[in-house]
Amino acid sequence: MFKINKNYLNLRGSYLFSTIAKKVEAFTKENPDKKVIRLGIGDVTQPLTPTILKALHNAVDEMGKAETFHGYAPDLGYSFLREAISKHDFEEKGIQIAPDEIFVSDGAKSDSGNIQEIFSTDCKVAVCDPVYPVYVDTNIMSGRTGKWVGDDSTGKWSDVIYLPCTEETNFAPELPKEIPDLIYICSPNNPTGSAMTKDQLQKWVDFANENKAVIIYDAAYEAYISEDNVPHSIYECAGARSCAIELHSFSKNAGFTGVRLGFAVVPHDLKDSDGVELHSLWARRHGTKFNGAPYIQQRAGEAVYSSEGQKEVKGLVSYYMENAAMILKGLKEAGYKVSGGVNAPYVWLKTPDNMTSWDFFDHLLKHANVVGTPGSGFGPSGEGYFRLTAFGTHENTIAAMERISKM
Amino acid sequence: MFKINKNYLNLRGSYLFSTIAKKVEAFTKENPDKKVIRLGIGDVTQPLTPTILKALHNAVDEMGKAETFHGYAPDLGYSFLREAISKHDFEEKGIQIAPDEIFVSDGAKSDSGNIQEIFSTDCKVAVCDPVYPVYVDTNIMSGRTGKWVGDDSTGKWSDVIYLPCTEETNFAPELPKEIPDLIYICSPNNPTGSAMTKDQLQKWVDFANENKAVIIYDAAYEAYISEDNVPHSIYECAGARSCAIELHSFSKNAGFTGVRLGFAVVPHDLKDSDGVELHSLWARRHGTKFNGAPYIQQRAGEAVYSSEGQKEVKGLVSYYMENAAMILKGLKEAGYKVSGGVNAPYVWLKTPDNMTSWDFFDHLLKHANVVGTPGSGFGPSGEGYFRLTAFGTHENTIAAMERISKM
Repeated sequence: MFKINKNYLNLRGSYLFSTIAKKVEAFTKENPDKKVIRLGIGDVTQPLTPTILKALHNAVDEMGKAETFHGYAPDLGYSFLREAISKHDFEEKGIQIAPDEIFVSDGAKSDSGNIQEIFSTDCKVAVCDPVYPVYVDTNIMSGRTGKWVGDDSTGKWSDVIYLPCTEETNFAPELPKEIPDLIYICSPNNPTGSAMTKDQLQKWVDFANENKAVIIYDAAYEAYISEDNVPHSIYECAGARSCAIELHSFSKNAGFTGVRLGFAVVPHDLKDSDGVELHSLWARRHGTKFNGAPYIQQRAGEAVYSSEGQKEVKGLVSYYMENAAMILKGLKEAGYKVSGGVNAPYVWLKTPDNMTSWDFFDHLLKHANVVGTPGSGFGPSGEGYFRLTAFGTHENTIAAMERISKM
Repeated sequence: MFKINKNYLNLRGSYLFSTIAKKVEAFTKENPDKKVIRLGIGDVTQPLTPTILKALHNAVDEMGKAETFHGYAPDLGYSFLREAISKHDFEEKGIQIAPDEIFVSDGAKSDSGNIQEIFSTDCKVAVCDPVYPVYVDTNIMSGRTGKWVGDDSTGKWSDVIYLPCTEETNFAPELPKEIPDLIYICSPNNPTGSAMTKDQLQKWVDFANENKAVIIYDAAYEAYISEDNVPHSIYECAGARSCAIELHSFSKNAGFTGVRLGFAVVPHDLKDSDGVELHSLWARRHGTKFNGAPYIQQRAGEAVYSSEGQKEVKGLVSYYMENAAMILKGLKEAGYKVSGGVNAPYVWLKTPDNMTSWDFFDHLLKHANVVGTPGSGFGPSGEGYFRLTAFGTHENTIAAMERISKM
């Protein structure tokens, strides 16, 4: 008689965004005349840019001729893309990451979910709190998180080390007393929008090397960094090659949420105590459970790094960051305590009058008809906070701020 | 100190196809004048067809306009594609599979590798032997296979139930004495090219239901079936909805090896002893570790089901099956014992003079300059057999047969 993976049964009820969707649906049903503005989900709204569209069309044409047809891609990615990544994301910033250390994938969500698989199930996991829920959920599925202790919004997993990123810590994680084996850091952070400085991150790299821990560094939002002292890659820190895996996405910089392309960096220097390279394990996972990102998508990724492509995607980032600036300004003027929005497309606000995150969600939906995301959905330290995203259109962002100011 | 997933260290040395690549490279270096013909790897060679190219171009155009841009896809797939699949692959064949039971993915390799994750690690696995290596390899990575016992080519994993598919069993698996929990069946089979009849498969469905086992049925080659008594889906068998998951690919029917699209079927009737639906577990895995197949690809998948698309992809299948017929005929005339090639693009031959699979590989490469795949690479019962694929061009297939006949 077959048995299921019982760890799955530990996963907490319905997913954050489906709860939001249900609440919004109920509200619009009751209030058909109200125009709801969504500043909740982290999906982009601006279309792909001309250079990327051209690359996609060209690649499709190639797939239509026997001489230029492309079947199975190399498991780890085409050289043309891995070389472009190595050059533009690393070499030009003075970082040495070889094309061979880059693994092209169908996106950072897959990578951030799958990466835990190459580690022992008894590794102790630490996560920034609040953070992107995939890190904890995928470790629940693998049985690393222990038992749920506490109530729905501020409860915790008994075996997870939480690294609070709150007003008290200036929204950066502090070194924990208990030593973790795997440390998930997302910087600039989703959902807080705050980013670690190079000095702050260097402390974590040193800590990881001292304790033989691995940092899984999610750099999905690096294109939004505007301040000089914030690193674009963990490999800007000395010693990171021997303790860090870095995850990248084309979703937020180039608008690829529906295109699906990302990559992971696993340096050869990252080895376990027996000298086994994590690179070889990840290569084996890629080769066995994945058949490469599509040729068409990889050509689109290459186009992102062309000089025209770079101009265009910087335009996209600027567009969203103008929204972020409007949200920051609007909320400040309306008397809210806010952070983020400078190095990331997320603005993080403290709920007024000690409202819970979900109470503020209901409040904002009812009185401003604006949808945001309750901070408690991202971890226990998110309770009492709320996320607004800059991925809307200018028009909607302006309208939302007007409504909030009148609330 | 972090620890790795030690199961990965149990994976056997270099992968079949990389060993082949190295041997071919060495041969061509020594014999630069010889033109090597590759009938080894299961990759397609014919370009995408016009209707599919049009759908891809249209979808790319949509991604370039804000009004028609598509961001994150629904985790489980767009309705337009799931409905097309439900209608054409199932309803039209008299099978009831609802769109909601279909999970769109980036391909059957990912699905066949990931599906084991929703089961307990102490499930006992049975596999057809020989078979596509991903089933066993992904269970090695999860620790279900025990120890390797025996030599390189005919050794076995101590905890795996092997289901020999050889001349002696007429290339169909027979019910085992030991009861498995998970049963991997690929039919039409890769690499033997043989397909189970409906009666044969019904026995397995009954066996699975009696023993509360789950059949993971890989239908990647169903488009190549030409005989009436061979089922296109396991759900043609009575009772399969309560014991079977079915995996489908667009790679081999529509030439999507480099496009990447597939789907899994998990019926709601498939439940564990506590009544937990596997559907809910697979949905959770999709939602947590995957961000949907790309919009562009899903539109291409939809186009496969249009009437023009169907005509075109049937043309592709016919093209390859003409190759299969030529290979079958050529090998028979040359005195080989052959099977497969009627319901699948693979022809399976018994090596002459009791040669090992690898000896015959070297022999064929040296004397006919033709590359095939050693049967032992697919499992212990593959030793003494050899696979040729029909995915080459007509010209190369004809030339290869001429050379073999003169060998």
